[in-house]
Amino acid sequence: MTCIYDDPEAFATTALAGFASVYARTARAVTGGVVRSTATPAGKVALVIGGGSGHYPAFAGFVGPGFADAAVAGDVFASPSAHFIAHVMRLAHRGGGILLGFGNYAGDVMNFGLAAERLRAEGIDVRIVPVTDDVASGPAAQANKRRGVAGDLVVFKIAGAAAEAGQDIDAVERVTIRANARTVSFGVAFTGCTLPGAKEPLFTVPAQRMGIGLGIHGEPGISEDNVLPAPALAKLLVDRLVSEKPAGSNGRVAVVLNGLGCTKYEELFVLWVSVEAALKKAGLTIVQPEVGEFVTSLDMAGCSLTLTWLDEELEALWCAPADTPVMRRGAIIATQPAAHLSEDDEKPLVFGPASAASRENGKCISALIGKIARSLREVEAELGHIDALAGDGDHGMGMTRGSAAAAEAAQKAVAAGAGAASVLAVAGDAWGDRAGGTSGALWGLALRSWSGALSDDVAISPDAVAKGARAGLEAIKRLGRAQVGDKTLVDSFDPFVRTIEEQAGKGQSLNAAWNAAAAAATAAAEATAQLTPKMGRARSHTARSLGNPDAGAVSLALCARVIGAALDK
Amino acid sequence: MTCIYDDPEAFATTALAGFASVYARTARAVTGGVVRSTATPAGKVALVIGGGSGHYPAFAGFVGPGFADAAVAGDVFASPSAHFIAHVMRLAHRGGGILLGFGNYAGDVMNFGLAAERLRAEGIDVRIVPVTDDVASGPAAQANKRRGVAGDLVVFKIAGAAAEAGQDIDAVERVTIRANARTVSFGVAFTGCTLPGAKEPLFTVPAQRMGIGLGIHGEPGISEDNVLPAPALAKLLVDRLVSEKPAGSNGRVAVVLNGLGCTKYEELFVLWVSVEAALKKAGLTIVQPEVGEFVTSLDMAGCSLTLTWLDEELEALWCAPADTPVMRRGAIIATQPAAHLSEDDEKPLVFGPASAASRENGKCISALIGKIARSLREVEAELGHIDALAGDGDHGMGMTRGSAAAAEAAQKAVAAGAGAASVLAVAGDAWGDRAGGTSGALWGLALRSWSGALSDDVAISPDAVAKGARAGLEAIKRLGRAQVGDKTLVDSFDPFVRTIEEQAGKGQSLNAAWNAAAAAATAAAEATAQLTPKMGRARSHTARSLGNPDAGAVSLALCARVIGAALDK
Repeated sequence: MTCIYDDPEAFATTALAGFASVYARTARAVTGGVVRSTATPAGKVALVIGGGSGHYPAFAGFVGPGFADAAVAGDVFASPSAHFIAHVMRLAHRGGGILLGFGNYAGDVMNFGLAAERLRAEGIDVRIVPVTDDVASGPAAQANKRRGVAGDLVVFKIAGAAAEAGQDIDAVERVTIRANARTVSFGVAFTGCTLPGAKEPLFTVPAQRMGIGLGIHGEPGISEDNVLPAPALAKLLVDRLVSEKPAGSNGRVAVVLNGLGCTKYEELFVLWVSVEAALKKAGLTIVQPEVGEFVTSLDMAGCSLTLTWLDEELEALWCAPADTPVMRRGAIIATQPAAHLSEDDEKPLVFGPASAASRENGKCISALIGKIARSLREVEAELGHIDALAGDGDHGMGMTRGSAAAAEAAQKAVAAGAGAASVLAVAGDAWGDRAGGTSGALWGLALRSWSGALSDDVAISPDAVAKGARAGLEAIKRLGRAQVGDKTLVDSFDPFVRTIEEQAGKGQSLNAAWNAAAAAATAAAEATAQLTPKMGRARSHTARSLGNPDAGAVSLALCARVIGAALDK
Repeated sequence: MTCIYDDPEAFATTALAGFASVYARTARAVTGGVVRSTATPAGKVALVIGGGSGHYPAFAGFVGPGFADAAVAGDVFASPSAHFIAHVMRLAHRGGGILLGFGNYAGDVMNFGLAAERLRAEGIDVRIVPVTDDVASGPAAQANKRRGVAGDLVVFKIAGAAAEAGQDIDAVERVTIRANARTVSFGVAFTGCTLPGAKEPLFTVPAQRMGIGLGIHGEPGISEDNVLPAPALAKLLVDRLVSEKPAGSNGRVAVVLNGLGCTKYEELFVLWVSVEAALKKAGLTIVQPEVGEFVTSLDMAGCSLTLTWLDEELEALWCAPADTPVMRRGAIIATQPAAHLSEDDEKPLVFGPASAASRENGKCISALIGKIARSLREVEAELGHIDALAGDGDHGMGMTRGSAAAAEAAQKAVAAGAGAASVLAVAGDAWGDRAGGTSGALWGLALRSWSGALSDDVAISPDAVAKGARAGLEAIKRLGRAQVGDKTLVDSFDPFVRTIEEQAGKGQSLNAAWNAAAAAATAAAEATAQLTPKMGRARSHTARSLGNPDAGAVSLALCARVIGAALDK
């Protein structure tokens, strides 16, 4: 959804004005586009690029030394008019002729073509290279009918570097045509985009589906499929592009993994891991890859992969310095690589001697933690949901990760012959190390503290368990600075500890004492719903926020019940 | 929607691995985070920053010369564990002590605090600065309870510059604390974000509404309001921040306009124009603003504004060179400002002599174009919708813009005493210049060609109109390389021209001839729905794609009918 605008019709021109103001050091706004605000030598070939708006950083973000001289911007998704293109071209011309670059769309071909005619009539040497990288839009035999997508970045970068190097218009045109001929892209879309001022998206993709080969303005794709896991998606993209590997390629490729707007950086980095592996498997060498947002479509979700089959000249131009608002090559601060870094390997698990009884207790603790881990995984989404009402929604994931790591560590400790205290201690450490977040820190500390009341020698007693619970509770209260009523896990942990102390004091069995305590914890967790939330203000976007239970108190009570039920058997 | 992942639990670590692979020149992956891959001098204070994942470029994207030495990354929206933080800190330490920077969240405070304790126990001097810039999360009197949002960027940048300049740990800590105390942020959210693997967003904001002061993990905000136009939104953000201007401020501010993920660059640039104006109105001087995505929340839509009240030292550090994957300061290629550039002013409208009859005809043409413009504005959304089914959805906007510009130009020409041919010619030029896109180029050319058959002297005849129509059609067919049946405006323009020629040849009145031609155009536009689409493949994400009429043919027929109806009166 495009949410920020004033007059939708002024969206593109206002956006360009804002861009030029922020990047005044690089570009200046002129009617219809931007031109470099830095001096260029007379006689240099001018690279003028452009197309519709809504694709930032294409095209204004590519203006600067080593790259484009000017960018023309039409309205959102609409070619600029020949009039404005010609105007910007005149301002950018330095006497060496103009290379005009744009994506191969009917409107752009028409308007840039008309503008070129006008400038040629004025005696200026203008060459035109429409970019045709999108393999989804036509067969290889009709490559000139293909549309241009993120391949723009590579083709224009190479053209800009050639112009910056002082090549003449013939040479710049030649290398740009070759770069375009050797550049292919393939993409998928997950959602449509919304034009400024529109109430509905321009087009839609069903939930959990993706449009394969869909164009950056929603032009028809090749097919539709379920959303794929990252490795399968990477294979789909890489296989299709590698199938067009030209004869005689040296196997070196410029690579761009491009996000369309709402497919975010971390998703792209996740995909990159698989793309890199697939490219290497195909025997290719990756040269200065770019992963990010380069040719976007407003708020569309999706991505595309671009390969340019390099040769020696193309590679040198792809790697040459460039200094634009978005695409950069080269260092601002000269550096040296750091020395080799060695990370400690995991220490082998070594435990002190343990009695048979304590080892048996350790086995039991390990089994109980395993049960907790399974139960938490089952309610992960529910816990996350409760947490999201008042916090950041990570509680379910954190508890699942922590308990799974604790169960694994406990199992290993048992296998290594550890006693009860050691098993609980390593389980607590693993929980804290792996879970992160507030709950990870608190649970890790609580279990570690709890283990201090046990031993690897004497068998477990209800008293020792109660002492451990108290130690855990006090540690949590110190670290978390929380008291009963603060809507934290202390709300259910405190009655748990008081009850188990009381029951153990009465000489009850561990089973009976634990289950009484678990019941007290559960009652308390449920009661948090009646407490006034301490957050001080209502979560305005949901009416469910007031009076919902605290996720930490709920999950602690759940764990207590799971253990109680197991002890009962 | 987060669509790209494999194992949701491995999302954050995989993303970090991908990041480190792409930016190997700057950073290397270690367990729990990344550290600089470039050499740093022994004894330099190490700036270690971090927090949960899902906020890229925070925090890994800020690692590099002039900025951070290392970044620790927890799972999505979850603090990293003390164990991993301590591990990364040990790898980053160069003997000069460590400044630990993170946003003020309970989990981070806990885990970073525990890690600091561990390293202090190992004899390393560690200082902690939790960032507390979000004014929505607490009153100014309790600033230490505020959470950290995009102010991270400014505070850490200043800390990194101080460390890079060789300041000792006391000095770095002092200036970082001051930077944090003088940094405030305020933001709004338009939509929630979705955790990897989750089927539903973490929270939601009602459509056309915005959460004011909502946290970057969906923590409760201050209030909710309708989405505001850019100038009003800018005022909301600026006013709130300016209200905390500290006494003795020199009026110079570092400014960050931050997008949360799905509020895109062009929206931010549009907002920036208003923000800049509001800041200037408040008497402030903007120093090296940053507009983009710096502290995101997965795919959340929204933005925040950050101000840092600079003093001389803070300003120097904010502007100092930095060379990281995302945040950069300084030039790669040395440049000089370009010479002053003068754009031609608009030429005054001067027309040759025109007869009274032709001036009257010109007035009539102007009125008709005005009617077309009003009708097109009414159907703009509908035309866009038809166009979106097969193209890029810009047809409605393009026609509205073009016809409005044509109507305005025609009116001016009439006022300047132009005859019929001149009125139509300038209207055509204005349409083409302002509309852009395919339809703009074609309509501009068609009207300009049409005007060649009229004159500024003789009154308009049915024959002249028919000749002009033919000239327009032929010009369009040449430029657009389109024939009847290609699903373009030629499909309805061709029968229009053939009919008006036939009717004019029979000696019919202009009114009768035109209306017959308009009827033929309308019938043909409707018939395009029965044509097999030439696109060759179905638009898989919508069943409506096959057999829908062409937007260009439809809008031409509509214009013809509007004129016909007006002539009838």
